[in-house]
Amino acid sequence: MAGASEAAPHPYVPTDLKLPDYVPISLPLSTILGGYLLSSLFLVLLLWTLSGRLTKKTKIDRLLMCWWIFTGLTHMVLEGYFVFSPEFYKDKTSFYLAEVWKEYSKGDSRYAARESGIVGIEGLTSVLEGPACILAAYAIASGKSYSYILQFAISLGQLYGTLLYYITAVLDGDDFSSGPIYYYSYYVVANSFWLLIPSLIAIRCWKKICNAMSIESQMKTKSL
Amino acid sequence: MAGASEAAPHPYVPTDLKLPDYVPISLPLSTILGGYLLSSLFLVLLLWTLSGRLTKKTKIDRLLMCWWIFTGLTHMVLEGYFVFSPEFYKDKTSFYLAEVWKEYSKGDSRYAARESGIVGIEGLTSVLEGPACILAAYAIASGKSYSYILQFAISLGQLYGTLLYYITAVLDGDDFSSGPIYYYSYYVVANSFWLLIPSLIAIRCWKKICNAMSIESQMKTKSL
Repeated sequence: MAGASEAAPHPYVPTDLKLPDYVPISLPLSTILGGYLLSSLFLVLLLWTLSGRLTKKTKIDRLLMCWWIFTGLTHMVLEGYFVFSPEFYKDKTSFYLAEVWKEYSKGDSRYAARESGIVGIEGLTSVLEGPACILAAYAIASGKSYSYILQFAISLGQLYGTLLYYITAVLDGDDFSSGPIYYYSYYVVANSFWLLIPSLIAIRCWKKICNAMSIESQMKTKSL
Repeated sequence: MAGASEAAPHPYVPTDLKLPDYVPISLPLSTILGGYLLSSLFLVLLLWTLSGRLTKKTKIDRLLMCWWIFTGLTHMVLEGYFVFSPEFYKDKTSFYLAEVWKEYSKGDSRYAARESGIVGIEGLTSVLEGPACILAAYAIASGKSYSYILQFAISLGQLYGTLLYYITAVLDGDDFSSGPIYYYSYYVVANSFWLLIPSLIAIRCWKKICNAMSIESQMKTKSL
């Protein structure tokens, strides 16, 4: 039985990564990627339609609500599963979320290797930021005064996590991908949305908040 | 010469950590700790006195300015040195900043081991947050409209970094300290200030910003 703990062949780089009892991906690529992309698209279209019934909401508000619910569910469901499933690569049941992370690990094997930096970033993202995203969508819908500062806080968290994700990869040699197609599509392109969109939202919130602070301080000066 | 690359004896845990050409600490403990504590105290007292000349600044504003300059210099000088000095543990010149990190590594050997998560967190802290702290002190002094949102942003960054610092340690077994005294004084107590103070500042900024957003939205409603 000693041989059973030997590393099974796996598709990840570095090839000497030990993943005992690794079970190969069983779902077709179209199911894994299509499942996420189509369910996200369906969700966004549904939310866009439903949010149209809210009076006084601008198109930007509605778009932001779609973004917060999409990214919040991604954080809680997809990334949450990863955080609490250290042995996803042993899954034999073709469970969809396990298959997603087996596939994504081709772009970044630190997921399968369970690097503490990755688990830590994903832990903060799924446990703290995920529910906060849903709250942000609610805050926009109901016009709460904390709407902008909450969106700003989550966006900064997403930016910090994504930056650190890339920085730690570079510090460790940036060689965790099974090939250029995985490197660019999963590791670079997929993650870049979580640099681009939070940056745009953070800048927008910063401006709105600075504007409100100016108005408040002008009022104070007048009332003196 | 092959023997020269063998691990030299060092005071860190785990003891099998390889630190070739390690040079033991040469400054006395009182110089290392006293240097940081006394120069910080001197700086804060000086800033407190100077800020007293600013008219219209409350005691809380003056305290915050002291904090931002103290923490900004700590980030840029102390942590900045660590980030850009991968071989600090080989330093033979009794250079003060190298001695600080040789000493601190007794509380957390991941610094001497140059763990990518630690270097990444310290990199973001020293390069982005450090200068932003100095800007925050300036923003308070000159009453800028971005004062609160900037303080909020830096505090969140400090909280994210400190939380992740602890989470990654726990995930990796939380056994990087040379003994309980180092564990509690350096790793737990010294870092806890960067959980406590940023939390208090973030809550204060959140309230101030929500208040200003309420006033702005009331004005919009009135003017409709």
